[in-house]
Amino acid sequence: MKPLTTLKAVPFEATKIEHGFWHDLQQLDADVSIWSIYEQFQETGRFDAMNCHWEEGKGPKPHIFWDSDIAKWCESAAYLLVRCRDPRLEEIVDEVVGAIREHQQPDGYFNSYYLAVEPQNRFTQRMNHELYCLGHWIEAAVAYDKATGKGEFLAFVERYVRLVDRVFRQEHSAAFVTPGHEEIELALMKLYRHTGKEQYRELCLYFLDHRGEDPDEQNADWINRLYAQDFLPVRQQRTAEGHAVRAMYLYCGMADAAYSCGDEAMAQACRALFENAVGRRMYITGGIGSSSVGEAFTVDYDLPNREAYSESCAAIGLALFARRMQLLDRDSRYADVIERILYNGFRSSMSLDGTAFFYENPLEILPQFNHKDTSVRQRQKTRYPDTQRKRVFDCSCCPPNITRLIASVGDFLYTYEESPKTVYVHQYLDSSTRFAMAGVPVELKQTTRYPADGVVSLTVSSPEPLGLALRIPGWCRGEADLSVDGVPQQLQMKNGYAAVELTGGTHQITLAFAMAPQLVECSPHVAANAGRAALTLGPVVYCLEGVDNGEDLRELAILRDTDYEISYSQEWGCNLIQASGVRRNAEAFEQAGELYHLLGSSPYLRQELRFIPYYAFANRGETEMVVWIQVR
Amino acid sequence: MKPLTTLKAVPFEATKIEHGFWHDLQQLDADVSIWSIYEQFQETGRFDAMNCHWEEGKGPKPHIFWDSDIAKWCESAAYLLVRCRDPRLEEIVDEVVGAIREHQQPDGYFNSYYLAVEPQNRFTQRMNHELYCLGHWIEAAVAYDKATGKGEFLAFVERYVRLVDRVFRQEHSAAFVTPGHEEIELALMKLYRHTGKEQYRELCLYFLDHRGEDPDEQNADWINRLYAQDFLPVRQQRTAEGHAVRAMYLYCGMADAAYSCGDEAMAQACRALFENAVGRRMYITGGIGSSSVGEAFTVDYDLPNREAYSESCAAIGLALFARRMQLLDRDSRYADVIERILYNGFRSSMSLDGTAFFYENPLEILPQFNHKDTSVRQRQKTRYPDTQRKRVFDCSCCPPNITRLIASVGDFLYTYEESPKTVYVHQYLDSSTRFAMAGVPVELKQTTRYPADGVVSLTVSSPEPLGLALRIPGWCRGEADLSVDGVPQQLQMKNGYAAVELTGGTHQITLAFAMAPQLVECSPHVAANAGRAALTLGPVVYCLEGVDNGEDLRELAILRDTDYEISYSQEWGCNLIQASGVRRNAEAFEQAGELYHLLGSSPYLRQELRFIPYYAFANRGETEMVVWIQVR
Repeated sequence: MKPLTTLKAVPFEATKIEHGFWHDLQQLDADVSIWSIYEQFQETGRFDAMNCHWEEGKGPKPHIFWDSDIAKWCESAAYLLVRCRDPRLEEIVDEVVGAIREHQQPDGYFNSYYLAVEPQNRFTQRMNHELYCLGHWIEAAVAYDKATGKGEFLAFVERYVRLVDRVFRQEHSAAFVTPGHEEIELALMKLYRHTGKEQYRELCLYFLDHRGEDPDEQNADWINRLYAQDFLPVRQQRTAEGHAVRAMYLYCGMADAAYSCGDEAMAQACRALFENAVGRRMYITGGIGSSSVGEAFTVDYDLPNREAYSESCAAIGLALFARRMQLLDRDSRYADVIERILYNGFRSSMSLDGTAFFYENPLEILPQFNHKDTSVRQRQKTRYPDTQRKRVFDCSCCPPNITRLIASVGDFLYTYEESPKTVYVHQYLDSSTRFAMAGVPVELKQTTRYPADGVVSLTVSSPEPLGLALRIPGWCRGEADLSVDGVPQQLQMKNGYAAVELTGGTHQITLAFAMAPQLVECSPHVAANAGRAALTLGPVVYCLEGVDNGEDLRELAILRDTDYEISYSQEWGCNLIQASGVRRNAEAFEQAGELYHLLGSSPYLRQELRFIPYYAFANRGETEMVVWIQVR
Repeated sequence: MKPLTTLKAVPFEATKIEHGFWHDLQQLDADVSIWSIYEQFQETGRFDAMNCHWEEGKGPKPHIFWDSDIAKWCESAAYLLVRCRDPRLEEIVDEVVGAIREHQQPDGYFNSYYLAVEPQNRFTQRMNHELYCLGHWIEAAVAYDKATGKGEFLAFVERYVRLVDRVFRQEHSAAFVTPGHEEIELALMKLYRHTGKEQYRELCLYFLDHRGEDPDEQNADWINRLYAQDFLPVRQQRTAEGHAVRAMYLYCGMADAAYSCGDEAMAQACRALFENAVGRRMYITGGIGSSSVGEAFTVDYDLPNREAYSESCAAIGLALFARRMQLLDRDSRYADVIERILYNGFRSSMSLDGTAFFYENPLEILPQFNHKDTSVRQRQKTRYPDTQRKRVFDCSCCPPNITRLIASVGDFLYTYEESPKTVYVHQYLDSSTRFAMAGVPVELKQTTRYPADGVVSLTVSSPEPLGLALRIPGWCRGEADLSVDGVPQQLQMKNGYAAVELTGGTHQITLAFAMAPQLVECSPHVAANAGRAALTLGPVVYCLEGVDNGEDLRELAILRDTDYEISYSQEWGCNLIQASGVRRNAEAFEQAGELYHLLGSSPYLRQELRFIPYYAFANRGETEMVVWIQVR
């Protein structure tokens, strides 16, 4: 089997991030977020549960996915250890590994829920996240092995994986064939890449190839074929369906397999699934999975703002999928989507102080209507997303997923190929990177305030000639100035990237993307946004909050010919925007005590509109928020 | 106790409707609707259930509110009998009376559900509609007595009412104090007016006075204090809360009692409740109760269009409440609300062919999104109203409520007072009415195509001088021409009515209301309608349907300076309107495979907009529909 392309990834370990937006976020992650989650996971008994000693009546009952919470926390810790040694972090991971050492079964099995709660039922309940948990253990173990060189964690998961291989692929003695919640597929590919052991890739392919083969497989009761991406064999799937996180993790595994095995049919499926998810089912923030019912995709163009589910993990999943697609196709669209997610639907999922998290990321909040349904019992209320971030959730998949992505954001920066020697520059963020390309060292240093402004200085050093493919972000619509060693260049565009050929040595590249506030409209098929526009500045989507703009935000209209005033907020670390708008005078209606007047009978009042980045919403208490506003 | 005002009602029996909109509807009612419902009630076992012979395993189990379905059907039949004798209708009512004769208990009790299913539990379950059913029996019996003079039905309910009076008011031996679903209050006032027996009014007052006294009374589990209007004693209530039909029926009883007893505190509560319901919680169609959760009011200004519950019975209830308010206050606002309901949210509840009914009356339908949530079990789906009318419902309160209102629409026409002699003309519809005012005969004949046009010829005959108070509908905003015996008059407005003094004899009054298409805007507090307007023509609200205007209707914008083309459709019996509008070209988005473009990058296409009356929506299969449209 030959890889589908000659493109290769530059892993985040090659990159140091010492200034700017992502430095600050990684520092917050290391100083605050990882510890905030640690405390919450301690308090809720998750860490303790790894000791598998729960008994009825003794403390909180472990949940089927607690292993994955701890594993993602360990993975986050491992990534942070690459950035900066921290004995306490390492100690905690070692304690987890110690618990596993103690309780791993002679045959390799380890799952803290099953061992403590229903040991007789292992490998019998497809929807119980058993292989999903193993997938996250694998990712954590690979990360920890890379970070510390301590092999025990990795040895543990390999032993467990070999058991799974035997039970599922060789003996078929498990009660189901493919996992109900995907994750192990992409993890097995990661393990295969890390160890080079073919068995792991084969097991991944086994799970992929059998998915959707027997659509009735343990789909009893409510989980139907779409929910768990069982409706067709994976190579035949063309629409992104069901539980959005499961879908994305599956597609990651598919893209890994397509690349690794040169499987063009699988790659075609990945392209169609990406196209459908992004072209018809994605919020402007990069959020996906619009419905809380099943945490799922629904139908094309169904993107309600106030009820948006848009789970943090689903946005992360889409970014991980797009990153893998960058190895299948040379197309800047993938990096554009990653950027859209990173600066909007992903960043929104964590509070500015790093302590609290959104599971769901709505695009509109009208608290007065969210807290309605006063006249019936609680559980019949109409469901709206939380309006405030929380420190922990019963299902707390998102927080440690967020910390691990922040810590490994460097993974999104570069890919390369060796013949002809080319480095793809996908993302712009202040950083320095070193790696070897066919044995030849390459250094890339980006100096930039991006996304606060659109100027990027890129220093490239390599003893040999080198091609660069510089992504011109979709949002600047081709308006970019490029100079090499001070000499302005025409953009030589190919698949969304500007091609630059460099001789050996050190070169200074400057990119200046035209970054001005832009109003963006949405497809006419999206009913929710009809007649409305969203304000953007570079990759960042903006919103209005009630605390700045008063109530009835859906009523506000921005003036088409407004001037914009942009100010950088040191405190918030981002640009704020002021613009001119109008709203109708509500007094006329209130005085009449009537809801309906002849059009034009209420005067418009001028109002300054104060926009903040969408990702910064809900950091000042519960208040109205809108992304999509009227234009006049 | 003295009535609050000297205003009196002219009952519908005084009026003949022989042409026009309401004649056609009454004819449809008599020829089709009442029989369509009859068949459905036969097929579902409702009529048979009156024989109280159900046993486990023998046929469909009676439901707790089936008595009310049959009672409302009988009441409808009685009203239709006033209009035109029909031996078959009378025979069916007599059969129902016969069943009651056979099964009424020696103490007067009759409830087909309790007698057949749980005889030991009568008067123990507050939320089980027992007194609600009796209320409807009372209304039916009074109607039948008036229509036929046959006294048996009335004797039956009076016997039952005396039992209730004893058990509830005298012995306090029932397990609850006030009914969970109001209706008996207004029915008792009707019975009091019909029989003159003070006991019935006292029982009504007993139920009113004790409501909200003990808020915990059988509110166990999920029914909370707001749901059943228990949150405060009725005279202290100021906001319309809870289940909208229950609320309206309660307010009807309160208004009846306020009027009858001269109870100013009660009248004040009624005014505030009306103000709140109409001024902050009513759709432009006259629909109320915006949430399916509890079929209830929620909070001020929460009027979602696509999820609108807006139950047919709630709109009917509001019309009945407003009709009673006309006896408390001389204010045209009540008649305006009645008209809004009659030609919109009420008329919409029945199909044009008279065979099928809406329980809910949404103001927007986007079928493609309503049928989403494909990836999870049925019962977890997001809830949207039906997109098509049905012949019968499990809870079939609406269909016979609709038929009885159509048959008794004349009730809304006139009120009068004797000193000074004044007739209030509230509604305009082709009709002739005779009644006596302080012994002096009065004849009023309206000739009009209203609401198809705004011209009304009114012939008034009375041997004595007479004042007229002619409602100038709110929608014409004072633009009305009035002539008396051919002589144009200045409008002498008082409380929304134009005052005209007539000498004895016969006079010819002509009213011409300026009726042209109008765009109406909604209060800025209503988030759902921000940036949108509704098209109206006279009292009729219009909508766009997909079958006429293509898909993505929320995308359509009407041009502010459009010309309108109005055409009367003989087939539909109403005006259709064409106007000019635009929509964005979706192709640009589709070709790019992207959801988000720079504002202004997709060209607008001109499109003729074809509007139909809102009430006529969903008569041509499932299709998109919107009321609130963009304006450019």
